[in-house]
Amino acid sequence: MSHRISIGIDLLGSDNSPIELLNSIIALTKTLDPSINFKLFGDQNLLNEFNKFNFSNEFASLEFHLSENAIEMDEDPLVAIRRKKNSSMCLAIKELKNKKIDALVSCGNTGALTALSTINLDLLNNISKPALLATIPTKINPCSVLDIGANITATSSQLIEYAILGSAYKKAKGIKNPKIGILNIGTEEKKGTLVHKEAYQKLTEISKKNNFEFIGNIEGKDAFLGKVDVLITDGFTGNIFLKTSEGLASFILDKIYNDLTKKEFLEISKVFNDLQKRLHYSSYPGALLIGIDAIVIKSHGYSSAPAFASAVKGAINFVKQNFLNSLKLNFK
Amino acid sequence: MSHRISIGIDLLGSDNSPIELLNSIIALTKTLDPSINFKLFGDQNLLNEFNKFNFSNEFASLEFHLSENAIEMDEDPLVAIRRKKNSSMCLAIKELKNKKIDALVSCGNTGALTALSTINLDLLNNISKPALLATIPTKINPCSVLDIGANITATSSQLIEYAILGSAYKKAKGIKNPKIGILNIGTEEKKGTLVHKEAYQKLTEISKKNNFEFIGNIEGKDAFLGKVDVLITDGFTGNIFLKTSEGLASFILDKIYNDLTKKEFLEISKVFNDLQKRLHYSSYPGALLIGIDAIVIKSHGYSSAPAFASAVKGAINFVKQNFLNSLKLNFK
Repeated sequence: MSHRISIGIDLLGSDNSPIELLNSIIALTKTLDPSINFKLFGDQNLLNEFNKFNFSNEFASLEFHLSENAIEMDEDPLVAIRRKKNSSMCLAIKELKNKKIDALVSCGNTGALTALSTINLDLLNNISKPALLATIPTKINPCSVLDIGANITATSSQLIEYAILGSAYKKAKGIKNPKIGILNIGTEEKKGTLVHKEAYQKLTEISKKNNFEFIGNIEGKDAFLGKVDVLITDGFTGNIFLKTSEGLASFILDKIYNDLTKKEFLEISKVFNDLQKRLHYSSYPGALLIGIDAIVIKSHGYSSAPAFASAVKGAINFVKQNFLNSLKLNFK
Repeated sequence: MSHRISIGIDLLGSDNSPIELLNSIIALTKTLDPSINFKLFGDQNLLNEFNKFNFSNEFASLEFHLSENAIEMDEDPLVAIRRKKNSSMCLAIKELKNKKIDALVSCGNTGALTALSTINLDLLNNISKPALLATIPTKINPCSVLDIGANITATSSQLIEYAILGSAYKKAKGIKNPKIGILNIGTEEKKGTLVHKEAYQKLTEISKKNNFEFIGNIEGKDAFLGKVDVLITDGFTGNIFLKTSEGLASFILDKIYNDLTKKEFLEISKVFNDLQKRLHYSSYPGALLIGIDAIVIKSHGYSSAPAFASAVKGAINFVKQNFLNSLKLNFK
């Protein structure tokens, strides 16, 4: 008998209503392979909502794991994970650690999710801390950016780890000699802080041995040209980079939508919808916490229900494709 | 006799051809008030080009200041300004210091321009270092962002200086109680590094006394909503923020332009052109080096000729409006 895929979903602690997220998951199960099992982590209130549903056996199965409370967005991560051992996020990480679930999706407190994963799960060889990886569209191929916010600062050694992790990620996706760049304020070797200069030096030295191509520094304006497969950055800058892109994309698309007459809009709706799909975060499978021996996906704290469902589908795909194994095979 | 406006223009050291920049300035003079005087700083090669033109007295007048060399983009700023005392940028700053010109426009090495200005020009009261200020469109009013790259790092005291400078800038533009925000990775008070947390605290304390409203932290995704008039950030993050916005805007507009049929495009060309004008950096007057007792405008190193001309027009407007005086009146 083949292994039944089991996905853990932490429904608490985001800016969204847990009930809305629950509804989106229940709607999603109706479209999925019935062999998939969902373990939902929520509190008593949510369990009461959950119990209102009549589940048939046709669809993917759902289990509810009752937690005492939630780690909230504004809590200090380390204080919260020490005090709230029976929170939905802590319980979910425990299930992942004990291999009771194959992947975890959460849209809760990023710092707490990163800390819990770092403390409880195995790290990949020579990795000091995991990073969050997200993928953006470009003029050519999609580009994976890390870290987008698992850690606020990064040393040059951490930037090197991000390059190695990002490279392994792309190789697991079938790209043989990934192109790596550093997100920086200019292309010249001497640009940026000491951390960037050191990382530039080291990447020049180690790129051949690691089978990736180091392209150099990439400016924000060139990030969407598709010159690199992987863009490395500290988590603060990466987070600003990603969220700025999302904000500007919304700004532009909303402006086009609002300024065009109905007739004009209909004329270009195909191109518009295609662009919106490519740019809008809700079509992305969330960010992968990379560097740990597990699949943990962080969906935005402000994820809409469709974005959250898309993150869950992303997790299922990672498990189905045995992605973690491919990643480790490409990781030295 | 009224004072004749004199604008200094450093034509060397950018990614653009100095000849192209020279041509754009000569074209610009034909559209301008003949009482404006331009002092162009360039080398012998450029002077040879300059001498090929036949200037009539109808237009704004042009003077050429011969320099020995240029500070290049990849030079270390402090080494360069020490070694190249007769470079176009050094000579231009000297003219500004000696009040021979009313404003300076350059698209050369940002670090060198900032260092030369800091060393040679008077700083405004209680300002330790100048910052670069640029203005972006939002859903409501334009938002001024600083620092976008004069300094790579910022202390919390510097972020406070940016808030005070940005606030004075907006007041000089007629906004009575400007709204200030910190560019950060989350809205909660505790987000970001120690520098951000300290700045948050101090701004809460001093905002009333300084007649501005401190809104708190602003995420990249919300920067284009228009919640603030001024967004403060360290120069590294600010530079990534601005250039990412430019890169993504180009990416989206190019994609729309390329994917639409000619007929479809014609249908929406008015809205498209309007959006392009609002988003494209070439329509912005460059970045103002704020915090010094002079008008220095930095145009992008990769400025197209129209963008450079637009920066020059921006400088003329600042002088005509006596902007520096208004800024100082609003600055305490």
